[in-house]
Parts: sequence; structure tokens; C-alpha cells
Amino acid sequence: MNTLVVELGARSYPIHVGDGLLERSDLIAPTLPGKDVLIVTNETVGPLYLDRLRKGLTEQRVETLVLPDGEAFKTLTTFSQVVDALLEHRFSRDCALIALGGGVIGDIAGFAAASYQRGVAFVQVPTTLLAQVDSSVGGKTGVNHALGKNMIGAFHQPGAVVADTATLATLADRELSAGLAEVIKYGLICDQTFFGWLEQNIERLLARDSTALTYAVNRSCEIKAQIVSADEHETGHRVLLNLGHTFGHAIENALGYGEWLHGEAVGAGLSIAARLSTRHQWMSDEDTQRVDHLLVHAGLPTTLPGDVSPSRLLDLMKLDKKVVGGAVRLILLKGIGQAFITADFDHELVLDILEHQT
Amino acid sequence: MNTLVVELGARSYPIHVGDGLLERSDLIAPTLPGKDVLIVTNETVGPLYLDRLRKGLTEQRVETLVLPDGEAFKTLTTFSQVVDALLEHRFSRDCALIALGGGVIGDIAGFAAASYQRGVAFVQVPTTLLAQVDSSVGGKTGVNHALGKNMIGAFHQPGAVVADTATLATLADRELSAGLAEVIKYGLICDQTFFGWLEQNIERLLARDSTALTYAVNRSCEIKAQIVSADEHETGHRVLLNLGHTFGHAIENALGYGEWLHGEAVGAGLSIAARLSTRHQWMSDEDTQRVDHLLVHAGLPTTLPGDVSPSRLLDLMKLDKKVVGGAVRLILLKGIGQAFITADFDHELVLDILEHQT
Repeated sequence: MNTLVVELGARSYPIHVGDGLLERSDLIAPTLPGKDVLIVTNETVGPLYLDRLRKGLTEQRVETLVLPDGEAFKTLTTFSQVVDALLEHRFSRDCALIALGGGVIGDIAGFAAASYQRGVAFVQVPTTLLAQVDSSVGGKTGVNHALGKNMIGAFHQPGAVVADTATLATLADRELSAGLAEVIKYGLICDQTFFGWLEQNIERLLARDSTALTYAVNRSCEIKAQIVSADEHETGHRVLLNLGHTFGHAIENALGYGEWLHGEAVGAGLSIAARLSTRHQWMSDEDTQRVDHLLVHAGLPTTLPGDVSPSRLLDLMKLDKKVVGGAVRLILLKGIGQAFITADFDHELVLDILEHQT
Repeated sequence: MNTLVVELGARSYPIHVGDGLLERSDLIAPTLPGKDVLIVTNETVGPLYLDRLRKGLTEQRVETLVLPDGEAFKTLTTFSQVVDALLEHRFSRDCALIALGGGVIGDIAGFAAASYQRGVAFVQVPTTLLAQVDSSVGGKTGVNHALGKNMIGAFHQPGAVVADTATLATLADRELSAGLAEVIKYGLICDQTFFGWLEQNIERLLARDSTALTYAVNRSCEIKAQIVSADEHETGHRVLLNLGHTFGHAIENALGYGEWLHGEAVGAGLSIAARLSTRHQWMSDEDTQRVDHLLVHAGLPTTLPGDVSPSRLLDLMKLDKKVVGGAVRLILLKGIGQAFITADFDHELVLDILEHQT
């Protein structure tokens, strides 16, 4: 087991990464303020792992809530069901929520923890690669709105993140690839060496080599923890973590949530960001080819879904949370490992790339 | 105009109290991060004051949302309507909400500001006595749930509070009395001198004497600002501000939200807290009589509504946010101006008092 710390003063918390951590209730129990615990999971993950997680929590009063699986359920309605459960069990302010599942479960349960009685404790137990390397770390919680992704939410840090890499064994291939999109993103943002390692080890990752997966999760969490520690509420540098996401969110929204996985949309978004960077002559064509090559190798799309119009995507991008004073800002690349934010890009070029990327 | 500051480091903000402040857009404009502003108000307040508030905001793009009036609408559904409006106007993270109205409007708009894109700016323009002396100050936002009051919400501080005491002229008598419950509460918690002043000046306040009202609002805000500055997230001393509220929330819930005004329920709650304190011999009977006398004089109930059963109230009290480890904690009195919190009270005595207070 490896343990990192997200340094946030009084809100600092550990990220534990390792094989077989689901049963390590000693990693969770010290973060619980009281006896009452609600485990929130979904219909896919619950049958596989709920019992193993529950087993260790013998000192607590543990209740469970099993939600339907999928991004389509990341709504205010589902959030409301979590609050209903907390109130029906008469949980008080010293209760805690445990999110057992992927990014959707973590985001919903985290927002419920942020909002229930104006804030209670929670623990992230991510079971997908995407959740382990990205969504469980950093305190972003929330739900989608018909008009935009993650539009309703809160910054609410967990008390701990417990990432059991053994759970990745049961992950669908498509989910594994989706998680790799976020892993590749970290290399692109700030770590050329890690990007090179991913190019060398993509086959091992796809074959679920435990050592390779653990290394990738650890390195991703290290990068994310460092960025979040320096900028908890995304007033500066943290915005770089959104590389590929402005395009990705627009794709998800245009297709309807759940059609493409979030990571798949981010994969296509990374490709678009790379191409736009090259068209602006900020990054070499060779680097963009490396990006596309790795994405394809990882089983990710680099082209847009055929039934989405470029002008609709551009329109949806204006709903992005990075818009300031009406101006869309994009995270682009000056090279592999060198992301930056700019509002000074050519909208015609974006449209041109979108039109030719189907 | 008098200006106080709630000292909260980087989140410090001013409370402006005075006659005719609605048109003082210079008090609001500096706190707005961008051009986009949504004023949230209700059907009662909007027709009276919306134009006067809007008039000064000439540099902004101002949109408005008029909600139905009343505690019954302080729900997740109404919150969702505010978010809908923000998204329909395509407001980005640099927008701001202005809450123009009473406590319900402030709580809903504040929670929407806390949650929209994980947090945007907001300004409180309270138009009821209750909102001016209590709910607009301190950053508590949220909505009710069928199973409990303010169960879903966030701590989210405003950028400024602008309390125009001239708006109290149009307040219904019942609303004025409801606000006085919170004013009386401050005297009871920690300021015997202020309580004495209220006994002397209650007639002037009911007659809406501008000088008396301004003094009462100022003194109340001073006390609240001081307590909130020392304990923003209610981990300690701030809990005393809930004097009368455990009983009050249970009454509101039992009757159905909107039947009694929040301040009326708090009035009855203050009376119950005083009686229980006297029965425990923590406070003199004379002090309890002074409390009841002032409440009655202020037009507030000191007895329970007839159709609510004491056992149901006790049951509802267990849903209170101050419950820790299953134990109900009450704010009680060691004298006028000396509130304290305790879990060490006699439940049979509570039941007895509730049974004889109808």
C-alpha cells in the first residue's frame, strides 16, 4: 500500500492506493466522526464489493443505498434520494457517507455529504480507474443539469480516499480505457516523462498488470494531489486539470449523458486540444500524432461521434464553467507536459477542426 | 447608515443598515465579480422594491426571477428553478445572485449561489425584520425537506448585506412580530441590557419608530456578527444562536411549513426554553415571566398550536441538526443574557411542559 497526502491544512487527507484495501476498515474508521454510516453504491458495484467493505465496519451502524448505474442518473433527483435515505435513517450531523463506486457515485454522494445538514463527513472508495485517478481526489462534487455537466455542486473534501486496485480486475474494458484518458491527461498537462512511460506500458495497463496499474494510479494521484493542494477552489493553476474537458463536456451533453463514457469524451477532447494547439503552431505536429497514437492504443475515440454537429458543440462550450466575462477559455498545449490556459484562440480553427474530426 | 463588518478573513463582508439603501447600488456593485446578475425575489416583495433595486444597477446585465411567497416554497424544487434560470441565461462562474426578500428568499438564493458551478457570488438585500436581524447574516443557506427544516444547504457567505430599514414600513404586523422573536433571542442569549431596552421600547418598535427599529437591527447584527466571526461553521459557540429553534423547527414541521411563520414558532420555542430552564431551577421564575411578558407584548405566541401532539414534537426534535451521537442537545438559559447548551435535561419535564403549554 502506498499513501499520499492531499495537503489542505485542517482539511488534509490521505489517499491510500494498493491491492486488497476494501477490507481495510482501519483506514476508514478513524475518519468517521460518529457511529452512523451510509454506504452509497450502485447496482453494478454493490453486488461485487459491498459485503467486503461492510464486513470490516463492525463498530458502526451501517446503512446502504444502491442507486442505478450510469451518468444518466447523476441528477438532482438522485441526489435527493440520498438525502431522503439519510433523513429516513435519522442520521445526524456526525454521520458519514461512504461512496463505493465510480465517479458518478462519488460525485452524487459527495454532494449529498456537502449539503446534508450543511455538511457531513465522507470517504471515497473508488472502484473504477477514472475515479481512482481523478474524480475521488480533490473535493469536486456535484450533479449534472439538462443544460450542462456538473453545474450544481460543491467543493467538499473527503476524509480519506481508499483506492483498492484489485477492484480494477472486474472493470469493463471500456471503463478501463475511459480511466486511461484521465491518466494520459496528467502526462500531457505536466509530466512528459510519465507520458513516455505510458507509451511504453500501455499494453501492460490494458492487460491489467497490477504493478503497472498501481504505478499509474499512484503517479496520477501524486500529480492531482499536488495541483489541488496549491489551488483547492480552482482560482488558478487547478484549471489545467480540465484539459480536454471543455470539448468532452460538450460532447457528453450533445449526445445525452451516458451515451459516451465521460473518459471517452475526454479522450476525444484531448485529441481536439492537441490538434488545435498544433494548428496554432503552439505544439509540433509530431506531438499531436503521439497523443492520437496513445489515445487510439488505449482504446479511446479521437474523432467526434457522427451525429453531433460542430456548431452545436461550439454552442455548448459556451456553457463551460471556465467561461469568464462571456469568453470561452481553453486548456491547450505548448508541448507534451506543457498545458496552459488561453482565451486567445481562433474560433474558426476550432470549427474547422470539429468539422474534420468526425 | 451604519456599517458593521463580519470578520471572516478573506470572506469578511459588510452589513449596511439604514434608511433608503435600496437605491444605493454603490454598496452592491463593488462586490460583483462580473456583469451578470440575477435578482431573486418573490411575488410580494418584487412589485414593491424590485424596480428601485434594479434602477441603480445600470452597469450590469440584470435578470430577475420572481418566486411564489412563503416557507412552503423553500424546497429543492424551487432551488432547482433558480439554477434553471441561471443556466437559461447562460450565466458563468463570475455571475452573482442578489436575494431581495425575507429569509426564505435569502436561504434559497444563497444555496443556489453556493451550488451553481460549485459557488458564485451573492448579496443579501433583506426586506423583513427577521431577515435583517438574522437570516441574511452568517452564511447559512438551504432548503427544507419534508422530514426536517434546513436539512439541505451550505455555509456560503454573502459579499455584502444591505438592510434598508425603510422596507419594514410595508411589512405585515405578523411579519414584524416574527422578526422581533429573533431580536428578543439576542437579548436572551448574551445581552441582558439589550433585553431591558426591548422591554422599554417594544411599543416604539411595534409602531415602527424608525430610530428604534434601526437601533434594534444594528444591535442584533452586532451580536450575530460577533458570534459568527468567532465560529463560522457552528462547531462551538454559534450553536447558541439556535435558542428556541429546536422547539420552533419541530412546531413548524408538525404544522406544515408556512402555517406558522418561522419567527412565531421561535417565539413559542423561546417561551418553552425559558420554562424548561426554570423547571430545572437554572433560571428564576421571574425571568421566565419577563420572557413571556415580552413575547406576548411583541405579538408572539407563547403556547403551542392546539392540534400538535407533544409526543410528535419530541419525536421531531430528534431530527434536529444539533443532535450528536443520538442525543438531543438544547439551548437553555441560566438567566436573561446567559444561554448555554446541554444534553443533560429531563425529557419527562419537556413532555410535561409541552403538554401544559397548549
